[in-house]
This record gives sequence, C-alpha cells and structure tokens, in this order.
Amino acid sequence: MPSIHRAVPALRRLRLANTAFQQPAFVTLQAAARPAYQIRYQHAEAQQEAAPTTSASSADHAPQDQPDRPQSKIKPTAESYPNLKRDSRFKEVTAEDVKFFKELLGSESAIIDGVNQDASEDLEAFNADWMRKYRGQTKVVLKPESTEQVSKIMKYCNDNLLAVNPQGGNTGLVGGSVPVFDEIVINLGRMNKIHSFDEVSGILVADAGVILQQADDHAAKSGHIFPLDLGAKGSCQIGGNVATNAGGLRLIRYGSMHGNILGLEAVLPDGTIMDDLSKLRKNNTGYDLKQLFIGGEGTIGIITKISILCPQRSPAVNVAYFGLESYEKVQQAFREAKKQLSEILSAFELMDKQSQQLYHRATGNKLPLQNEHPFYCLIETSGSNTDHDSEKLNTFLEHVMGEEIVSDGVVAENETQVQNLWACREGISEAGQHFGGVYKYDLSIPLPQLYDLVNETRERFQNNGLMGDTEDFPVLDVIGYGHMGDSNLHLNIATRRYDKEVEKAIEPWVYEWVAKRNGSISAEHGLGLAKKEFIGYSRSETMIRLMKQIKGLYDPNGIMNPYKYI
Amino acid sequence: MPSIHRAVPALRRLRLANTAFQQPAFVTLQAAARPAYQIRYQHAEAQQEAAPTTSASSADHAPQDQPDRPQSKIKPTAESYPNLKRDSRFKEVTAEDVKFFKELLGSESAIIDGVNQDASEDLEAFNADWMRKYRGQTKVVLKPESTEQVSKIMKYCNDNLLAVNPQGGNTGLVGGSVPVFDEIVINLGRMNKIHSFDEVSGILVADAGVILQQADDHAAKSGHIFPLDLGAKGSCQIGGNVATNAGGLRLIRYGSMHGNILGLEAVLPDGTIMDDLSKLRKNNTGYDLKQLFIGGEGTIGIITKISILCPQRSPAVNVAYFGLESYEKVQQAFREAKKQLSEILSAFELMDKQSQQLYHRATGNKLPLQNEHPFYCLIETSGSNTDHDSEKLNTFLEHVMGEEIVSDGVVAENETQVQNLWACREGISEAGQHFGGVYKYDLSIPLPQLYDLVNETRERFQNNGLMGDTEDFPVLDVIGYGHMGDSNLHLNIATRRYDKEVEKAIEPWVYEWVAKRNGSISAEHGLGLAKKEFIGYSRSETMIRLMKQIKGLYDPNGIMNPYKYI
Repeated sequence: MPSIHRAVPALRRLRLANTAFQQPAFVTLQAAARPAYQIRYQHAEAQQEAAPTTSASSADHAPQDQPDRPQSKIKPTAESYPNLKRDSRFKEVTAEDVKFFKELLGSESAIIDGVNQDASEDLEAFNADWMRKYRGQTKVVLKPESTEQVSKIMKYCNDNLLAVNPQGGNTGLVGGSVPVFDEIVINLGRMNKIHSFDEVSGILVADAGVILQQADDHAAKSGHIFPLDLGAKGSCQIGGNVATNAGGLRLIRYGSMHGNILGLEAVLPDGTIMDDLSKLRKNNTGYDLKQLFIGGEGTIGIITKISILCPQRSPAVNVAYFGLESYEKVQQAFREAKKQLSEILSAFELMDKQSQQLYHRATGNKLPLQNEHPFYCLIETSGSNTDHDSEKLNTFLEHVMGEEIVSDGVVAENETQVQNLWACREGISEAGQHFGGVYKYDLSIPLPQLYDLVNETRERFQNNGLMGDTEDFPVLDVIGYGHMGDSNLHLNIATRRYDKEVEKAIEPWVYEWVAKRNGSISAEHGLGLAKKEFIGYSRSETMIRLMKQIKGLYDPNGIMNPYKYI
Repeated sequence: MPSIHRAVPALRRLRLANTAFQQPAFVTLQAAARPAYQIRYQHAEAQQEAAPTTSASSADHAPQDQPDRPQSKIKPTAESYPNLKRDSRFKEVTAEDVKFFKELLGSESAIIDGVNQDASEDLEAFNADWMRKYRGQTKVVLKPESTEQVSKIMKYCNDNLLAVNPQGGNTGLVGGSVPVFDEIVINLGRMNKIHSFDEVSGILVADAGVILQQADDHAAKSGHIFPLDLGAKGSCQIGGNVATNAGGLRLIRYGSMHGNILGLEAVLPDGTIMDDLSKLRKNNTGYDLKQLFIGGEGTIGIITKISILCPQRSPAVNVAYFGLESYEKVQQAFREAKKQLSEILSAFELMDKQSQQLYHRATGNKLPLQNEHPFYCLIETSGSNTDHDSEKLNTFLEHVMGEEIVSDGVVAENETQVQNLWACREGISEAGQHFGGVYKYDLSIPLPQLYDLVNETRERFQNNGLMGDTEDFPVLDVIGYGHMGDSNLHLNIATRRYDKEVEKAIEPWVYEWVAKRNGSISAEHGLGLAKKEFIGYSRSETMIRLMKQIKGLYDPNGIMNPYKYI
C-alpha cells in the first residue's frame, strides 16, 4: 500500500501536468453542431434576451449533430408513433378562434397564425424538439404576456375543447414540450420578468418564462445561487424547470424543487388562477397543492410565476477529477467524499472509460489524466472559505490515494481548469450524439447495482451483433455516466444511425431491469411522450389510478398536453 | 467604533465567564411540571420505549404547568367551542363495531374499549392533548400493528360512516391529534419498526409510529442525522411529524419535509394502500401525490410508513449566544451569519429580553451574559471539521463585535455549555406556561417586520389594562422568540390564568396583522382545530376551494379527522 508520501507528490505532479491542460475545442464543436432551426429559434424568441452563444453550453440538452439528416426529414411524431391517434373530441382551430386570440393578445408578434396563412417555417421551432426526435403539427402558437391572458386563453380552450401544449424553453428530452398533433402551443417566453429578490432571505419571485441563466445571474448579484444548474441553463425557462422537476448537477447539495419552491402561480384548465405565490419559507395552512404542479409537466395547469429559495452562493469552488480501477472503488470514494467533504460537497459525478473515450474522439480534447482507468469521477466542493475547502479536499484526496481507492487525480487550479474538467462530464451528452444518434436512458438505480446495467447492456450489444467498429454496425458504444450522488445513471447507446433493431434490443428490457431493482425509469427527465408507456415499470397500478384521478379532477376535458404523461 | 482588539478580549473574557456557567435547574423544573396524566400516557404506550425522562426535554411541546387546574377540569372541546356540533351523519360506535375491531386486531392490548365498559381513565391520554386545551370524547382507541390492519379499519369505518382521528405521539399544539366528539382514535404507536437504513445513501425506511428520537439515534449509528429536530423528539412520532410537516430547529440547514421525504405509504379512507414508498432520491414518473399527505394532518389518509433522506451528521457543533441592542442589529447579524457561516450555519434563533427574563424567572437559571440586552441570538454551526468551523465562527464573531452589530457574546466550549445555551432558547416555551397559561401564536412574517408584531402586541396590552405586575392583571408579559432563519416568530402571551378578554384582545387582530403583511398564521404548527377558522387570513378563497376539492376527492364521506383543518 502506498504511503501518504506517494500520494502527495502524485497530486503535485498532476497539478503541474494540469497547468499545461489543453484548451478544449469544445465550444467550436458545439457551434458547428447547432442546426439551423435552433438559430432561428433564438431569433423568434429574441425577447428572451438569450444570446445565441449561451445555448451552445447546453451540453445535456443540445440537439444532435446530424448533417446527413436535414431538418425537413424529422418525422412527425404521429408517424413515428403510429399507434397514437388524434383525439376526435378536440376541436380543430378555426379562423374564428384565431380572431379571438388576436384580439385577446392585442399584438401581431404575440401569435403565430398558421390557420389563415402558411406559417410552417415560423412554427417549426415550436413544433420540433431540440433532440430532433419529435415533431408536432400545431398551426397556432400563442405568446401571452400576463397571467390574465393565460387565464383567458385557457378558459376559451377549455370551453371550446381546444387542446393545448404549454411550452417553456423547449429543452426537454422526452418530447413533453412539443405538440403531437395540432395542439395549440402556449409559449411562456414573453412572460420573463423578475418581480422581486429579497437579499436577506434569498427568495426570488419571477415569471415562468425567465431563462434559468438570467435567474441565476440575478441571484448572483447579491451572493446567492439559483438552486438548480443544468446544461441547458442558457435556454431553458424556470417555469419549465419546475414543471418537469428538473434535477441537474447540484441536487446532491441543494435538493429538489419540491423543497426549494416556496410558491407558485398557475392557471388551471378552466382559467382559474391558482394564487399560491407565497414568499414564506414556512406556511402550514392546508394541503401543499403547488407540489402537484412541480413535475406535473403541464398536464393539469400552466405555471406562470414561481417563488423560490436561493441559497448563499459559495465563493470557493474546487473541482477534482480522478481515475479509479473498479466500480467498487467508485462507491468507496463516494462514501469517503460524503463523510469527509460533507457540507461542502456540491457534485459527485461518475463517468466510465467509454464515455471519456467518446468525449475525446468527438471533441479532440485531451483528457485530464495521462493513463487510462475504467472509471472517472468528478468532485466539486463549494464553500465559504477557500483555505478550509482546499484543506478538506486535499485531506480527502490524500486519504483516497493513500488507501488506493483512487489511482490518479487532478485538482483544478483556476477557473479555466474548472471549466475544462467539467467539460469532460458535461460534454458527454453531445459526444454521444456526435457520430449519428443516441438512445438515452435516465435511470435511478440503487447505488450498488447502478453500473451493472451498463455492463449488461454492453454485453447485450456485443452478443447480438449490433455493436462493432465499422459502419456495418449501428451501435458505436455503450456508455454510462451520471449523477452518482443521486443514484442517477445516464445510460447512452451511441449509434451511427437510428435503427429500430437497436431500440428493440434495449426496450422494454432496460425498463424491466430497472423495475426488478425498484429503480425509476425516469430519474429527472420526466415522462413526456417517450416514457408514458412505461410508467408501470416504476409505479403501481394503485398509484397510476390515483394519478389519473388527479388529472381528471383538474383537467376533466383532458385538453392539457394530451397523449403524454399518464 | 471598537477595534478588533476590543472584540477579541471580550470574547475571551466571556469564554472564561462561561466556564463558570451555572448548571440549570431546568430538568428538575420540567419533571415537577409534568402533569400526572402524561406519566400514565407513557405507561399506556410502553411499547414505544419512550423513557419517561425523554418527554421532559419536550420544551416546545410540553404541557402547561397548572397546579391549580386539576386534570378533571380540562374542558371538553365541545364545550370550549360551542359552535361545533357533532356531525349527525356519523354513526356512533356500537358493541358490534367493537367486536369487529377486536377480531381484526386480535389482541386485547390493541384496543381500548369504552363502549362495553367504563374505560375513561385509559382513554384520557388519547382524548386530551399535551397542552391541556383540548379534550375529545372518544370511546374507542385502536392500535393496529400493520398497514393491512389500518386498511381494514379504514374500509370498515368508511363503509359504516364512523369518523376517525389518526394519532401519532399526540404532541401537537393546535388540537389536531385528539378527537372533538366521539371519533375513533387510530393510534400508530404499535407500528414502530425501522425497516431499513442505507448507510451509503442515508435513506431510512420506517413505520410511522417510530419515535423521532429513536429514528435519529438509528441514523446516528452510521454518522447520519434525521433532518428534523424539535423539543418533543422524545415523544413525537415521525408519521405525525410528516403529517404535520413539522419544521423545528434546523430547517434553515436541512430544509422541509417536502424536500426530504422520498416516499410514503398511506392508507386512504376507502382502505386503499397508497404504496409510494420509494427509496430513490429522484423519480420523475408522475404527480408527486405523497406531498399532499405531508402537512395534510391526517385528513385524507393515514401515513403508515415513510422513506426519508438523512444527511451526513456533523461531528463539529459550535453554539454561540450573544446580546444585541436593536432588532435592526439582529437583522444585520443574521445577514452576516448567512454570508460568513453559509454552509455550516445550522440554527439562527432569536430571543427577546422579555423571553430571557421569563426563562430566568421560571427556572432560576443564570443567563449566559452578565448585562441585559434588548435582544439575544443563538447561533449553531455544524460541520465536518472542528478547527475550520471554530475559525469561521470566531472570524464572524470578531467581525460582528468589531462592527458593533453584536454587543456581547459567549461561545460554548463543551457539550454541557452547548446544552445550557440551547436551554435558554428551548426553555422559553415552558417558561411561558410556568405562571399560569399561555396564548401561543406561530407566525411567518417577512423578516424586516417580524418583531414589529411583538412591540405592537405589547403596546396593546399595556394600553388595554390587561397586563401588569400584580395578580389583578391576567397578562404577565408578551414575549417574542423563534426561528429567525426561517422568518418564523413565536409570539407568546404569558398569562396568570386563561381569560377570554385576553383572547378577544389578540384575536383576530393578530391574524389581520399577519395577513396584511402576507405572512402565515401558522408557520409550522399546522391548522388543527385551533386555526381552522382563520385559514382565510393566509389563503385565498380560490386556494381554499381547491383544497376542499382535494379533501372531497380522497375523503368524500368526510370521516377523517373531522371538524378540523379546512
């Protein structure tokens, strides 16, 4: 067993190595990979003040790089899912309806009218999702600028049986934010004001359409942090984050939306404005109804405003990246990190060798460690005192290296290195898509069994002849990474092309595998259209029945985000 | 302005003074104050293994010391609230019903039968609340030992329109846990097993009837902490904690039940077992129904099991107590503590001069500081490294003393001193009751205005002739204290005797005052019977209507915990 002496020089050597850390070509790649329609989307939503460059950082939710599949070839969802039939109870939008909406919204720019004219190009960004997997056929996009307008729209649609699709930043991964057929899109992008921020309590009140990055920037001004961070932060909207109960990179530290959201304003299908916009940390006066809307994916109401508790922002941030020889050692390292870093641990991310190789191949970026290891982890600490945090992190690293839990590691010494290390984790999602397409599974699995699924999936593809090194094989590689601290695995099948055989080989097998271990088939991405069929693998019949009861209570006509969720 | 030099010797001096800190007579007082019925209660619930002494620590929820009001004089709630009428739809319990329950539960000790015999003495502990303010008239107490038994009880009661009152440790402060008329008490005390604890993730799965202290002790074995702490921890049950969304002393650090509860098992009125006992930190598969039961106060279902995330327990705990000259300085100190102590701050409690004087008068305990100050604060830090935490706390204290934000202060140097400082805060509740009775208000108020209410209430009683130094005046003093970190004020009117004139002088004025400032009339105590009438001061008509809709959905016969909540 190596002594502490060996560990310390090792750390020092790696630090030196790290100063020569190569600037990644990552930003360039992402810019090149961004398809045309997304740029148009930024134009269409110029009011959101989302600089085109910010969406390039949306590693976890970025569109696929598919130069061989031009935009017009995205299949309509109705074709990809032939079993789905348009619900004939819903009325089709008429010129008369559009007239009502135009008068209500009072501005030409607040509506895209594909009923009285051909507006297919303008509608495309609202019909298609970022993944380029789903495409709806809406003819009308409404962009209200007030809760009252949303209320009147909803009442009209409910009275007239017009189906609607609430839409935030449209950065979801399960097809929840775009229509399936001709549902009217209600886009919240114009409701983008920050209403108040209490600098003592850290409580932010803002419209649902505020971009996550803007909300965080606002909180940062007074030393606070928005308690959610994810790749899509430059494009996604906080209302959508709440509606999908987004998890992201620092849930291990700041907890979920269910704990952080203090109040909500939402519009119900019948136009009722649910005014639950409390700015109090504690309020035990009745059922906490707002919780139903957190993760409700726009199926029982449209979130219009949120009130959220923003914790203190940590001035000291440290990031370490290390290599380990087995998944057993990854678990040991996690246990030690929880114990020793405790209150300053703000991320513990897992990346397997395959994910890092793929990242390297896709980006050309040099990896932080010279030698290869079966597993890598990224640890982030956030605290109020740089010296204390560095000491804790170094003590931890000396311990895990001394005990041979960790084989090798680097610690970032400046902001650029912090970003480079994070890029090795955040860049995986995009890398998986780089060579064609990707099948993504977002799963909660008890920690001891979490990586077994990746091994078994890889074996499955090795044995069924679908995975190989040449163009003959659809599957390039099976990679596993994710939020170790939350038992949340992202299992990705990186492919050269979408192929029904690949899908058949993995579904529903993967869901059965997860169900057997009492995991979740959707840890943080939600149900949307993609997982609707599979909810039974994670929820009992009783729970599904009770959920349907809630849906029926709030949306008896079923007009909200139909064909999805439950 | 004093220099840092002055601050440091001051701290040192106070530390020295602190070592001579007097052992408080607090434990003795509490033992003396515990009324007879409570001791019987401990006998009746011997299965809970709650040592009689533990209830003595229940400062926030302890019974009143009223030697002049013997037990038999606790008025039935039906008399104190003459407007309440028994709902004639509910059937009265018959010998036949009792027969069914006896056969179902299969044990003599699992039922208290006041139908076939006089059992009033045995029933008393289940009919009367700890505050000795409420007393029901149940004739039957059921103590199921499994979820299946609870399910069968509920189905039978629902089918036969028998009203029920779910009951945990019966430590609530708003009359929610005891019957009003003859509702059957379903006591969870026999369902007290810990089912699993994952030492890596910190996830605990346990029966609802587990005592909070036991749950925390179990978590402590592997270096974790139950993310809730309150005075009643020796008696209250975790199911009741969840059902009332208990807040407690360290919400500022660990957040609310809505964020920490990962799964619930609950029995609905029709006997349905809601099996939502997820052990996953992330599970975005449908509406988060369990949230309705958190804070639902047993009105739509009985919680039978919980799954909860327990964070890492901090080995280093520091407590400081200091005096300040104004509420403005209290707010400044809070801002600085948030900034400088950030991730290690685990409590920031406020106590006014009056509350500390009353504590001193009631207990005879010496206060930690020699000179008197208008305000006192108690700060607790919890972290993984003693040296780091001490350094942060000292830097903070030097800063706030140097800036004259804080006038004087002490830091505990050992566990006894930690307990003594905490006693000055936790002992207030009991002290308020020491001289007769107490009117308690548990309010959320925006921080800048929080203490204004105490001043205005005091003025009110100074002007209306109800407060004074002699026995002629019912009101002894008005005190303010509470969880500053959560904007949660406990406003207490310490009285020599209960007097309707006192109540009239304060209600509904206090609720109007809070409503005007968008506060909450019940921050953490819940609604129960006491606040049912006043929910309109904190919730809109729309919200109340939507809540009633939920109640109607789950409990169409209204048999669950009737006459209370909404």
